[in-house]
Amino acid sequence: MKVSFLAIGEEIISGFREEKNIRNSSPYLYSLGFSIYIQCVGDKKEDIKFALKQAESFSDIIICSGGLGSTEDDLTRFAVSEYFNVPLEENREALEDMKAKIKARSGKDDIPEILKIQCLLPAGSKPILNKSGSAPGFKIEKNGKVFYFLPGVPQEFSEMFQNFVLREIKEKFSHIKPLEEKVFKIFGLTETQIQKYLKDIGIPECVKISYLPSSPEVTIRITGEKNERFSQFCSKVKEELKNFIYSENEKDNISKVVGQILKEKGFSVSTAESLTGGELANLITDTPGSSNYFKGGEIVYSNEAKIRLGVKREIIEKFGAVSYECAEEMAKSVREKYGSDFGLSTTGVAGPDPLEGKPPGLFYIGFSSKNETAAFEFKFNIGRKYIKILCSHIALKILLDKIKDNGKNR
Amino acid sequence: MKVSFLAIGEEIISGFREEKNIRNSSPYLYSLGFSIYIQCVGDKKEDIKFALKQAESFSDIIICSGGLGSTEDDLTRFAVSEYFNVPLEENREALEDMKAKIKARSGKDDIPEILKIQCLLPAGSKPILNKSGSAPGFKIEKNGKVFYFLPGVPQEFSEMFQNFVLREIKEKFSHIKPLEEKVFKIFGLTETQIQKYLKDIGIPECVKISYLPSSPEVTIRITGEKNERFSQFCSKVKEELKNFIYSENEKDNISKVVGQILKEKGFSVSTAESLTGGELANLITDTPGSSNYFKGGEIVYSNEAKIRLGVKREIIEKFGAVSYECAEEMAKSVREKYGSDFGLSTTGVAGPDPLEGKPPGLFYIGFSSKNETAAFEFKFNIGRKYIKILCSHIALKILLDKIKDNGKNR
Repeated sequence: MKVSFLAIGEEIISGFREEKNIRNSSPYLYSLGFSIYIQCVGDKKEDIKFALKQAESFSDIIICSGGLGSTEDDLTRFAVSEYFNVPLEENREALEDMKAKIKARSGKDDIPEILKIQCLLPAGSKPILNKSGSAPGFKIEKNGKVFYFLPGVPQEFSEMFQNFVLREIKEKFSHIKPLEEKVFKIFGLTETQIQKYLKDIGIPECVKISYLPSSPEVTIRITGEKNERFSQFCSKVKEELKNFIYSENEKDNISKVVGQILKEKGFSVSTAESLTGGELANLITDTPGSSNYFKGGEIVYSNEAKIRLGVKREIIEKFGAVSYECAEEMAKSVREKYGSDFGLSTTGVAGPDPLEGKPPGLFYIGFSSKNETAAFEFKFNIGRKYIKILCSHIALKILLDKIKDNGKNR
Repeated sequence: MKVSFLAIGEEIISGFREEKNIRNSSPYLYSLGFSIYIQCVGDKKEDIKFALKQAESFSDIIICSGGLGSTEDDLTRFAVSEYFNVPLEENREALEDMKAKIKARSGKDDIPEILKIQCLLPAGSKPILNKSGSAPGFKIEKNGKVFYFLPGVPQEFSEMFQNFVLREIKEKFSHIKPLEEKVFKIFGLTETQIQKYLKDIGIPECVKISYLPSSPEVTIRITGEKNERFSQFCSKVKEELKNFIYSENEKDNISKVVGQILKEKGFSVSTAESLTGGELANLITDTPGSSNYFKGGEIVYSNEAKIRLGVKREIIEKFGAVSYECAEEMAKSVREKYGSDFGLSTTGVAGPDPLEGKPPGLFYIGFSSKNETAAFEFKFNIGRKYIKILCSHIALKILLDKIKDNGKNR
């Protein structure tokens, strides 16, 4: 089972506009088990014909978007006419529909010449009526292969894909069983490390694993037929990686999961950031409803700001701002100042230059609750922007683990 | 002049992840005058080989991304080996580079077996070293056609595309048409609005414009033959869009440009954030050296935190936290507290729910200097994450304009 998508338009190949039609519709066919082949070409007849040929040789179903309007660069109908070697004809059904839409919109009886062009369809094609715009799409069958041509405007494409194309395909392939899927969202292991774990467990042949990097997190998607081996394998993976799996919902991220557990347990958190410069608070507040558990934070970029927050001057003088001790004091001070259940802090050397004689990439994360104040050391010399992101994620993972372990005794 | 792009990965054809590598790199070749052909396939050897064949028949240059890691679904090297009918061999140069990177990172001398796989390159290919990650890319020439294979991780792809592939292509085609390039970094207009401005100016036929998405900023690149009409057109664009163009250097971003001018003039800034929840400070501190001019900031998410910062309780009671008055007080208070030349603040309704009876998307940005305190109202109901980013960028644009206009009289 194979399907080809083809997006036509200079705006796509030039980067002017994000390709959305294929992106939004391919998941529906992917989850039905289709192999998918995607092509994008500009507004050139030769290129469109070239792509149609590849699509036809790859698959039995071909879905195309774009180039059906009335302007000079809308060439799809002409390319299709040449490709199938059939003339363009005014399609009666398309014309009637266009007429009715114009009548409803403007009360007029005539179709402007420029819109009539849109009703020129390749001979032998069947129109796909457009409920949300003007240009109709059309369908052509040839040697058992089905070609769908839809307009590129996203809401028009989407409506016609859902209500016509997808419906037809589902009917045609209704005898095929959909695959089972299991998703694990993982933090703290690289793709390579995860693969090693899975190899040790033993991956059954009937099971497919995709690694979806969403740095610094990793999402794995396990796909296979719905049977005992599939569910046994998924259970084993879950058990083996339990310290690293923070969610089984594809749409989750660590900020959302931490937020849920804080909200659920009625806990609150505040942040004192040096290294991450706002990224940690930013990550927390990306989640809707975070004002319920995020009490606020400070970006204490200078030593003076750290001291004003509550870090003792002697600590900084003796150990430096980049130290276990300073991270602990920051976390404790911000927790007390904001009256939150937990305090998180970050301090380190973002680089590119060393600081206090300490190398770029070295950082400390502080955690404080009523019962415990601790700090953790890390070293990842991976560039300023990425250190900020990674450190913020680790801080939230530490908080998540602490809540799970000790939350009840805060 | 034709070029083919091929993105390989289940995450792309399944719609799980947005394709970014082609989208971010095709504009560079489009503006050089290349016809562009794009394909995406999943992690299947047969599909990869199928796409390579189409790419080869379309163009002389083929650029592929993805599938070069060490996991089971990384099949690009195996497909390439079969496609060109050459064995895979451990590449000495790639191995040496991998060894050096591992030594630098962990101090260890051995390359783990799993990483050695990444140094298996098709015989006769030339490695493209990876400075920001582990897997090397490689280049294969056959019958005058050049194939580039790069890793799919965006920052790795981007670095290798810019510094190796694009450089080579520019050299190779420099004799054909020495094109002139002009870049404008723009903030405050959408692509469609910019397009309208340019149409009104009148785009000469010999000039090509590509839009490089870097939301919420827009970069436009104007390319054409070096002549009077080209430079006249560029001057007109610059004059027409002067209020929105903040740089003519492609590598700039608004945080960097604001940082440069603050540093140059010896000014400092501090931030009080409600709506943006750390994103504004985060944006400022993304720029190396920001500790020189960023005095620190507070995320005053609750009304109590705003009052503790210095906002009068009556202001919040009378006008609400989401108001001109509160934004002004926040900016002024944080400037005074941190002893900085400028204070910036953000307050608004991130959504999805209304606040104080005010609709999601409404926000205020406060600005304060010794001579002036002001606030500005905006409304963009575009989703929580994007509002935070947009608001932070607008705040920096306001600061930039204020420094340019009034900086001397601070």
